[in-house]
Amino acid sequence: MEKEIMELVAEKKYTKLRELLSEMNPADIAQILEELPKKELPVIFRILPKEPAAEVFVEMDSDTQQYLIEAFSDAELREVLDELFMDDTVDIIDEMPATVAKRILKQTDAATRRMINKLLAYPEDSAGSIMTTEYIDLKGHMTVEESFDRIRTIGFDTEMIYECYVTDKSRHLKGYVTVKDLLLSPKNKKISDIMDENVIFATTLDDKELVAGQFEKYDLVTLPVVDTENRLVGIITVDDAIDVIQEEISEDMDKMAAILPSDKSYFKTSVISTFKARIPWLLLLMLSATFTSAIISGFEGKLSSYIALVAFIPMIMGTVGNAGSQSSATIIRAISLGDVKFRDIFKVIWKEFRVSVLCGIVLSVVNFIKLILIDHFLLDNFDAGLYISESLVVCLTLCVTVIIAKLVGCILPIFAKKIGFDPAVMASPLITTVLDSISLIIYFGITAVFLSV
Amino acid sequence: MEKEIMELVAEKKYTKLRELLSEMNPADIAQILEELPKKELPVIFRILPKEPAAEVFVEMDSDTQQYLIEAFSDAELREVLDELFMDDTVDIIDEMPATVAKRILKQTDAATRRMINKLLAYPEDSAGSIMTTEYIDLKGHMTVEESFDRIRTIGFDTEMIYECYVTDKSRHLKGYVTVKDLLLSPKNKKISDIMDENVIFATTLDDKELVAGQFEKYDLVTLPVVDTENRLVGIITVDDAIDVIQEEISEDMDKMAAILPSDKSYFKTSVISTFKARIPWLLLLMLSATFTSAIISGFEGKLSSYIALVAFIPMIMGTVGNAGSQSSATIIRAISLGDVKFRDIFKVIWKEFRVSVLCGIVLSVVNFIKLILIDHFLLDNFDAGLYISESLVVCLTLCVTVIIAKLVGCILPIFAKKIGFDPAVMASPLITTVLDSISLIIYFGITAVFLSV
Repeated sequence: MEKEIMELVAEKKYTKLRELLSEMNPADIAQILEELPKKELPVIFRILPKEPAAEVFVEMDSDTQQYLIEAFSDAELREVLDELFMDDTVDIIDEMPATVAKRILKQTDAATRRMINKLLAYPEDSAGSIMTTEYIDLKGHMTVEESFDRIRTIGFDTEMIYECYVTDKSRHLKGYVTVKDLLLSPKNKKISDIMDENVIFATTLDDKELVAGQFEKYDLVTLPVVDTENRLVGIITVDDAIDVIQEEISEDMDKMAAILPSDKSYFKTSVISTFKARIPWLLLLMLSATFTSAIISGFEGKLSSYIALVAFIPMIMGTVGNAGSQSSATIIRAISLGDVKFRDIFKVIWKEFRVSVLCGIVLSVVNFIKLILIDHFLLDNFDAGLYISESLVVCLTLCVTVIIAKLVGCILPIFAKKIGFDPAVMASPLITTVLDSISLIIYFGITAVFLSV
Repeated sequence: MEKEIMELVAEKKYTKLRELLSEMNPADIAQILEELPKKELPVIFRILPKEPAAEVFVEMDSDTQQYLIEAFSDAELREVLDELFMDDTVDIIDEMPATVAKRILKQTDAATRRMINKLLAYPEDSAGSIMTTEYIDLKGHMTVEESFDRIRTIGFDTEMIYECYVTDKSRHLKGYVTVKDLLLSPKNKKISDIMDENVIFATTLDDKELVAGQFEKYDLVTLPVVDTENRLVGIITVDDAIDVIQEEISEDMDKMAAILPSDKSYFKTSVISTFKARIPWLLLLMLSATFTSAIISGFEGKLSSYIALVAFIPMIMGTVGNAGSQSSATIIRAISLGDVKFRDIFKVIWKEFRVSVLCGIVLSVVNFIKLILIDHFLLDNFDAGLYISESLVVCLTLCVTVIIAKLVGCILPIFAKKIGFDPAVMASPLITTVLDSISLIIYFGITAVFLSV
């Protein structure tokens, strides 16, 4: 497809190109255009009919958008802006450098500009920042027929018309009717008689992650947003809610892998930015591992007589780390899905304790059998009596540390949430580092007691 | 809220209870009912008006649904089933034990039963398994007015009426019109003149994860599903697409934390199921750690003269593991978002290589400074000359292994995807275990060369 388009551009077969593009979906066109050499873009873009052109523009990444805006004449820029919905315009301005943003604002009329500036002022993670100000509002005294007239009048410039919100004179949100309700009701019925007053809404300052959760819970297509005085100011549409869900998950996964979150896609992030996102946690975790070195150094004198025990350190640390991250990952996900709350902490601990005892016992027994049967009889090169007691020390350590790992893994994320931290930061890398030190101390402690080192 | 409801039930104040419940959203009612003692449920459920009752029923978890179905009389069961949309009925039957499923099927008429059995036959992860068979279909020759009549006739039993699909005589999908298009067009206009022929669709056997991706990419509210002969057989609605997105993410996170995926929420999973989901990977990873023990045992004789080097093993392994999981987590997420494909492998390797060189150098330098300045001068208890060469060995190992870790971390998930494995399985725990052995070999190798052990 890309090749075909490039060829048509090179041969200046613009009519054919226009035909080809008009059959494609805007999101697909945007994806192809992003991969073409930038200098061809303005030419191709001018070939597109006005309405799909705006849709294609919205779907592009911000670098490409900026390039195009800089290539546009003022008239062209105004034409694209006229076709955009308010929330998309705000998103685009938000991503642009100040000079480009100013140029965009200059091309809009005073009323729009005032609205844009108001939307830009909402905090980054708020419902206000993702809402659109174009929606269908009805009054309670209207009839079904009058409502359809209103939808026909203002519907053209509105992204989602299927849920209409009913407000009073001072724009307070009173209820909603769906276009389905309207279609299935007699023409002269009053809106106040068919509207549902039990309406789910958000306020402008609500966290957008919370708002996205409402879409999931109540199977919504749009959600009205009110200001602090309960006046309707906008709506959020389900496509934006899905974007929020994906963003938050990418952010959680980044944090769980000890990376500072970034909102750009993999190839759009420069090497330096990727490096900057990764090095802080790597450094912090490396320096915290100093404890493990210190613990081993402390036991050094004694270790030389039981050097065989050193061979099991990586296995113990690895298993304990895995056991801990299983619990922390499960709990972090359960917290973000709303399944686990702070008040559930004892229920969680009790459940993880039982699971960890089962895991600890199975792991120790399997490990003991492996050590005795395979390593000892097949590869024997030790004093048998000593070897069995060493194996017991290793297995006892495994069992105790796996239990501790699962408990630490479930408790830390819940506490993190409680004190206002993101639970995802308590994921495997951090917990593993904490557990490394704990398991070493337990290992050497058990060694000291049982082998009287 | 729960308390209030329990009190009203205990005092048998059913009128007041009915009033209270009628003001609440079905999803909220379901959540409260699930937490009440099960024996109270049938009573409360019978109080609810018919339509919200069915909605509440759909929102409940399958254990509660089963309890209610068993408590229902045949007439009551039929009443609830009559109110359900086809896809919800199928989901419920899918979760029930065979005897309960049979009882449900017995209460439906022959045509519905045939349809349900057909839907149940679609593979678990297919588009067919999440579609609903209730949609608005129009013909090209209809006028806008006739279309509205059709919507009024069949719309009541249809979940989503806002995208109508145009089919020919043999039900082949030809295009779509939105209710918005219909509302904004003159009454006598023909559907074939206003319909958009460029319609995004899925086929029944498409992977549901792929289908959910289409919703995101094209900002859809519904997506039509056709059979292998391009005949329209159903639609998928955005709320089901969101559920698929969340399910797939929970599954990915489980795999990334070395847990066998489960589709139940945290507290709904029994201790035994949780244990069974976690133990296989723990065992496998523990047994693979045998390699690290073998490597250390192999060097044992030589180690006793450089016992200080042992103290750095956990730090090196930890840092290398973190570096590797940063890359693998980033790449796994990029693959699932469609940002990285197999053909990008060299671009990915080149980018990760540059990032890893930067990380490797910074980590080594910081570590060297820390070893020399802090550990050496503050806690000095070694021969200084030897200590510097030991520090250099540690730092060189760090640098080399971090680079390898990042390359392994980015290559394995891409190859897993290529050979049809889920890339998420290649996440930190597995990669860490592989990297543990690699870093030990490199560490001892470098030690042998530079310190001539």
